[in-house]
Amino acid sequence: MNQTVIMVKGMTCGHCVSAVQKEISGLPAVTGVDVDLGTGAVRITADPPPSEAALRAAVDTAGYEIAD
Amino acid sequence: MNQTVIMVKGMTCGHCVSAVQKEISGLPAVTGVDVDLGTGAVRITADPPPSEAALRAAVDTAGYEIAD
Repeated sequence: MNQTVIMVKGMTCGHCVSAVQKEISGLPAVTGVDVDLGTGAVRITADPPPSEAALRAAVDTAGYEIAD
Repeated sequence: MNQTVIMVKGMTCGHCVSAVQKEISGLPAVTGVDVDLGTGAVRITADPPPSEAALRAAVDTAGYEIAD
């Protein structure tokens, strides 16, 4: 089981969490997306893991941004 | 044109605004719902205007609360 953690900026409520989860869940091989709204941490379970570019694009589509 | 203004607590982003707009727009005779995310002010255009109970129920369904 392969886990990746990214930090997402700008999520303020449950709707934001759902939007990010929905986009990342749609990436190939993703079986879990766990979001901590308080910290912005998003843990993705996927084997193989998505590329950073794919994650960045998914978060962007949801309307947010990965923290650098 | 009859306008009613209510103050809604807890909206933090555009998704919250959309959720409130959607529920209030579904009330009878409502022809406009204008939300100011910064202040929480929601201006409803409707003739006749919705009852306070109907507005309260719609805001509650959206997941928010009218400020007392």
